[in-house]
Amino acid sequence: MTKLLLVSNSTQHGGGYLEHCRERVVEHFRSAGARTVWFVPYALHDLDRYAATARGAFERMGFQLRSVHEVDDPAAAAADAEGFFVGGGNTFRLLKRVREERLIEAIRARVAGGAPYMGTSAGSNLACPTVRTTNDMPIVEPGAFAALDLAPFQINPHYLDPPTDSSHMGETREQRIREFHEENETPVVGLREGGMLVCGSGRTVLAGPPAARIFRRGKDPVEVPSGEDLAPLVGAPT
Amino acid sequence: MTKLLLVSNSTQHGGGYLEHCRERVVEHFRSAGARTVWFVPYALHDLDRYAATARGAFERMGFQLRSVHEVDDPAAAAADAEGFFVGGGNTFRLLKRVREERLIEAIRARVAGGAPYMGTSAGSNLACPTVRTTNDMPIVEPGAFAALDLAPFQINPHYLDPPTDSSHMGETREQRIREFHEENETPVVGLREGGMLVCGSGRTVLAGPPAARIFRRGKDPVEVPSGEDLAPLVGAPT
Repeated sequence: MTKLLLVSNSTQHGGGYLEHCRERVVEHFRSAGARTVWFVPYALHDLDRYAATARGAFERMGFQLRSVHEVDDPAAAAADAEGFFVGGGNTFRLLKRVREERLIEAIRARVAGGAPYMGTSAGSNLACPTVRTTNDMPIVEPGAFAALDLAPFQINPHYLDPPTDSSHMGETREQRIREFHEENETPVVGLREGGMLVCGSGRTVLAGPPAARIFRRGKDPVEVPSGEDLAPLVGAPT
Repeated sequence: MTKLLLVSNSTQHGGGYLEHCRERVVEHFRSAGARTVWFVPYALHDLDRYAATARGAFERMGFQLRSVHEVDDPAAAAADAEGFFVGGGNTFRLLKRVREERLIEAIRARVAGGAPYMGTSAGSNLACPTVRTTNDMPIVEPGAFAALDLAPFQINPHYLDPPTDSSHMGETREQRIREFHEENETPVVGLREGGMLVCGSGRTVLAGPPAARIFRRGKDPVEVPSGEDLAPLVGAPT
C-alpha cells in the first residue's frame, strides 16, 4: 500500500526546517517501521549542505538519514530503502537528476512495496503524474515532464490566493491552473503553505491548518477544510 | 539587421491592449516598411478570439494583421512575412506549437533578413536563446526549451521585486533567477511591467517608465534606468 506525506513547504514563516510538520513526519515513518530515511537532495545546488540540513532535522526526530548523492549507485540504494524524503527547491533540476540517476523506477517500486514517501514542495510535485503544476522556473531541461506518478492527482504547492490589491498583470495562480486544465484532465490540489496531504488506505487526507483549493477540469474550484478526505474529489493512491 | 521590440506585458493595469507601447509598436513596424504583420497566437487557448483582439489593436495603429493559425502552412507564411508579433500567454504552449509548425527556422530566417519582430510576455521569452526564464507553468511539453535565439540574453517578463511584507515562503523572482545562474551563463534582463527592449544597430535600449534589473552569473544584480543601452551588460542582436 502506497503511503505518502506530501507537504506544501518545508519551512513555515518564522519556524525552523520541517518544524510545522514534525509530528506528521515522525508518525509517517515510524508507523511504517522505517528507521533510516533516504534523502533526495537534487532540487538544490549545494547537495552536501542540503543533506546536512535534512540530516539534522531527521536525527532530532529520531531517524537516521542518508543522502542518495553520497553513494555511487543511488538506484541500488533506493531499491533497499526503508523510506524516502525528497526535499524542495527547483522541480526541473530535481526531475533531471532523478531521471539521470534512474531513480524513477527504483523509488516507484519501493513505494509500491510499502516504503513511506515524503516530499516537500518540489518533492511533492515529484510524487504526481507529471511536474506540470510546479511553480518553478525551468532552469534546466529534464527531458520529459513525467514524474513518479505515486498519486493520481497534481499538487500545486505554495498555493497563493489572488491578491486583491495588486496592479500586477502576470497570471494569478488560479489562472495558471485553469490554463493547465485547458490542456490536461488531472485534478489539481492547490496546497496552501502549512498544508499537507496524508495518503494511505485509499484516502487522501488534508492536514495542517489551511483549507485546500481543488481544481477540476470543467468544474468550479472547491474549498475543502483541513481534516477532510479529498479522495472523492481527486482520488487516492492504491 | 535584427530589429526586436520585446515588451514585458501586453496590457498595463488600467489601460487597453498594447496601449502603453503603442507609439513604439508603430515606429517599430513602420520604420521597417512593414504594412502587414503576422501574428502568432499559440500562447493562448482560444486562437480565433486572440487573433481578433490583436487584429483590432493593429488595425487601429494602421497595420494589417494576419494570424498564422488561419493559414494551412504557417511556415510558408512566415517565410514571406514583413513582420511578426508573438503574443503572450503560456510560454510552453507557445513554444510547443511554434516547434510543431516548424516556425522556429522560418521566423529566424525572416528576422535575420530584416523583418521586425515584436513579442509581449511569452512572445518576448520566445525571442531569447531558451525559455528557461519564463514565469509560466509547464502545462504542456514543448519537447525542448531552445527558442528563437534572436537575442543573446534572457528576459524575465513581469519582473517583480521581492515583497517586503510577505510571509510567503515560495522563492522570490530574484531567487529563481539566481537558481537559473547556478545552471546557466546567459545574462537575464528582469523586465518590469511597462518596460520594453528596443534592439537594433547593435544596441539594446530600455524603454518604458521602469528601470530594469540585470542579473549576471557571479555578479551582483544591477539596476539600469529607462533610456539606457543595456548592450554593454547583456549584449545585443547582430
